[in-house]
Parts: sequence; structure tokens; C-alpha cells
Amino acid sequence: MTMAKAQNLEMLFHETLKDILYAEKQILKALPKMARSASSNELKQAFFAHRDETETHVERLQQIFEMIDKPARGKTCDAILGIVEEGKEVMEEFAASPALDAGLTASAQAVEHYEIARYGTLKTWAGQLGLKDAAKLLDQTLQEEIKTDKLLTQLAEQSVNAKAA
Amino acid sequence: MTMAKAQNLEMLFHETLKDILYAEKQILKALPKMARSASSNELKQAFFAHRDETETHVERLQQIFEMIDKPARGKTCDAILGIVEEGKEVMEEFAASPALDAGLTASAQAVEHYEIARYGTLKTWAGQLGLKDAAKLLDQTLQEEIKTDKLLTQLAEQSVNAKAA
Repeated sequence: MTMAKAQNLEMLFHETLKDILYAEKQILKALPKMARSASSNELKQAFFAHRDETETHVERLQQIFEMIDKPARGKTCDAILGIVEEGKEVMEEFAASPALDAGLTASAQAVEHYEIARYGTLKTWAGQLGLKDAAKLLDQTLQEEIKTDKLLTQLAEQSVNAKAA
Repeated sequence: MTMAKAQNLEMLFHETLKDILYAEKQILKALPKMARSASSNELKQAFFAHRDETETHVERLQQIFEMIDKPARGKTCDAILGIVEEGKEVMEEFAASPALDAGLTASAQAVEHYEIARYGTLKTWAGQLGLKDAAKLLDQTLQEEIKTDKLLTQLAEQSVNAKAA
């Protein structure tokens, strides 16, 4: 890479790291609320388990900030605020509905996909910047987000059908 | 499914359909701007091609609204507004930067992943509601969004590396 390109990609990498740190912290706050409102035990468990996983994701991000010699500070991420806000609306509007779990699962999958997009991008950039250890950590988180999204798809397909019986 | 469950899932399906219709219309407006600011021709072309594809996605949604006997009206989607806003910030902050295309590609992938989450959910629900034709249309769009996301990953990996030579 040319020097200018690398410097600019470094800035973009740093900005996006701040964006996802803020997002992860919002997700940490949202997940227990989603777990408490879910009616199926499986979905509750999935949300609580993902909350614990999210703590590890925050720790990995903090390690990466250290690697690039920057303070681990987030910056407002409008995307996650919008996604979480839509989740809240579903929780309120469908609070007493048998479709609540379907709505909660959909909200969680919108969150997962935002993270999959961001971690995929960050992993590619870390590789291009020669930050091998950072790329490895980002890939670990990416794989966990993909796994969570698949689990949620399974729950969405099973639970609604199970309740139909 | 029980009757109550089906009725509620129908409402959730309808609400989410309105959400993604609004999102698609925002994306229709954002893509030409992104195409004009991109510096690589390949990325410009990808954005313009996806704009055309998005018109088809809107038409498919309109067909589904007809199938469920509802007017094809969107409702404000905070998630897409947040995602598009972040894209605008990158366009402004990195306007003169050699990392601009990397930033634009990342923004487009965040958009794609939002759509992948929503179309995946809608497709599952359409199946559960016995709306086979709707499920088929939603799956067509879903596959196109997945394909676009993969193309953008390729461009992200190639273009930055190519410019480095």
C-alpha cells in the first residue's frame, strides 16, 4: 500500500473500531431486557449466553485499541441506536402477543447482521494494515456473531412451529 | 399455528414489510450518491447495478402488499436512517482520502446486512403464514442481497490491494 493510503485506512479502521465499541456497549444493555421479555426459555437462554459472549467481544476490542496505541473510547453509532430503537418498539407493541418471541428474534438478528458487517470489514482492514493479531481477534468475534445468527434462525423456525402444535 | 398466533404474526409480518419498503426507498436515494462519490469504476458500477436491482426489490414488495390486501405504504425505519447517516459521515470525512472507497464499501455492506436480516426473517414468516408466493419473492431478493454483499467483499479485498501495487 502507498503511505497515504495506509495512513487513511488506519484512520478509518480506528473510527470504525470506535463505532463498534459503542455498539457492543449498547447491545450489552439491550440483551438482558430482551431476555427478560422473551417468553420461550430457549430464547431467554440464547440472549443471556450472547450477553456473556458480548463481554468477551468488548474485551477483545479493548485489546485491539491497545495494539494500535489508542484509548478504548467509543463514538455514537446511529445505526445501532436505530436498530435497538426498532427492537424496543416491537417489545412494546407486541408485549402481550404470542408473536413477541418472533419479533424479538428478528430484532436480535438485525443486531447480529450489523455486527457481522462491521467485524467482516474490520478484519479485512486489519489484514491490509498488517495487524495480524488484531485480524485474528476480529475473526474470532465475527465467527461467534455468525454462529449466534444461525442459532437465532433455528430458534425462529422451531419455536413458532413448536407452539403451533 | 393457533389462530391468535397466526393473526399476530400476520401483523408483525405487515409491520416489517412496511419497515423494509421504507428502507429500500432510502437505499434507492443513497446509491446514486455513493456511486458518484466512489473513485473506482468497478465500485461505481456495482452501486449503479445495485440501484437497478433495488427497483425490482421495491416492485416485489409492492406485489406482496397486494397479496396480503394492504396498501404499499412504508413506515419510518430508524435502523436504515442510522446506517445511511453513518455512510454520509464517511463520505464527508474521507471525501479526499484514498481510503474513501474502502469506507463506501463498508457502508454499503452495513446496508446489505440490514436487508439480509430483514428479508431472511420475512421469508421465514411468509412460510409460516402459508404465503408461498410471497416467500418465493422474498427469497429471490434475499439471494440477490447476499450476492451483492459477496461482490462488495471481493471488491474490498481486491481494490485496496490493487491500488497498493
